[in-house]
Amino acid sequence: MASLPVPLLELMAALGKLPGIGPRSAERLALFLVQAEQGLSRHLAQAIVQARERVQCCVRCGGLTEHQPCFLCSDDRRDRTLLCVVERPVDVLLVEKAGTFRGGFHVLGGKLSPINGVEPEDLRIVELETRLREEPVSEVLLALPTDVEGDATCFYLAKRLGHANLRISRLAHGLPAGTGLEFADELTLGRAIQGRQAM
Amino acid sequence: MASLPVPLLELMAALGKLPGIGPRSAERLALFLVQAEQGLSRHLAQAIVQARERVQCCVRCGGLTEHQPCFLCSDDRRDRTLLCVVERPVDVLLVEKAGTFRGGFHVLGGKLSPINGVEPEDLRIVELETRLREEPVSEVLLALPTDVEGDATCFYLAKRLGHANLRISRLAHGLPAGTGLEFADELTLGRAIQGRQAM
Repeated sequence: MASLPVPLLELMAALGKLPGIGPRSAERLALFLVQAEQGLSRHLAQAIVQARERVQCCVRCGGLTEHQPCFLCSDDRRDRTLLCVVERPVDVLLVEKAGTFRGGFHVLGGKLSPINGVEPEDLRIVELETRLREEPVSEVLLALPTDVEGDATCFYLAKRLGHANLRISRLAHGLPAGTGLEFADELTLGRAIQGRQAM
Repeated sequence: MASLPVPLLELMAALGKLPGIGPRSAERLALFLVQAEQGLSRHLAQAIVQARERVQCCVRCGGLTEHQPCFLCSDDRRDRTLLCVVERPVDVLLVEKAGTFRGGFHVLGGKLSPINGVEPEDLRIVELETRLREEPVSEVLLALPTDVEGDATCFYLAKRLGHANLRISRLAHGLPAGTGLEFADELTLGRAIQGRQAM
């Protein structure tokens, strides 16, 4: 590959740092970009810089936003008695897409993982406690992943935040929509039975 | 998705124009880029612009290069009596990787395809004829794809370029390296039999 121009090699290396982009994808994308019309490449480069500079974390909820506070935090029609706690900024968008939640959000910025050195003080828990004191929240919905670390974080938060006037709930476990029993693993099916709902 | 910051949506749209990047990949990459450290995003943007501006097509062979003429065209150790004709600039790199070809290259820039409006005058055939007059080429190796259009282009070029003092060859058809007969389709196996070689 001695014949490859250096800027092309550099572009391949930069693209290869993106998640899910392996060496072959990086090569294919780099070759496309150097041969695409100049406007397309320049537009992409600008979009990357613009997005990185203009998109920040909301000072209140920690979600992604261009303005402070974010769209969701400054929307008066949201139900301020309900607060949904999520792991990452992108999770806010996922819950919003579901369209059934009308409360506020709080991004933790991770989940507890002693093995990886993530302790409670690395998460936005103090900020969460401040909000619970200052805002009229009556229920906290923990929308964390259902893996071991997500479960541990849920239990930790329930214990730390819980008091008589605050309801703490978490997302229901059960069958995914639109599939039969044969597609659910045993753990999911077991939890769906435990959490069975009256009809 | 009303809550997504506009620069993020614009970045997703720009990423979605890349080959092999669907809406979900674009979303994942965009979210990564706005949350990655600033240096990484900026470096990628610079690499895209640099590569697009500095990598051009070689005026002689049509391959990708930063300097004119390219590395391969200005290398005196290459065999100038042998010229390999390929479809796209990237094909030069593929032939070079194989490591068994020491001649020069000529990029056609496409293959004949009347259905898609690609006629002989859309390809770099006149430039090829000029090189054959000016350079001491005694053999042209056609390294074009083995699809219908590639075959048609080979036959057209063989007829148009052929004369008594110029040998025109094409890549051998046969079994891919390292596989058994059961992995070759009938057409490939048929061609491997036709092109059988003495041991």
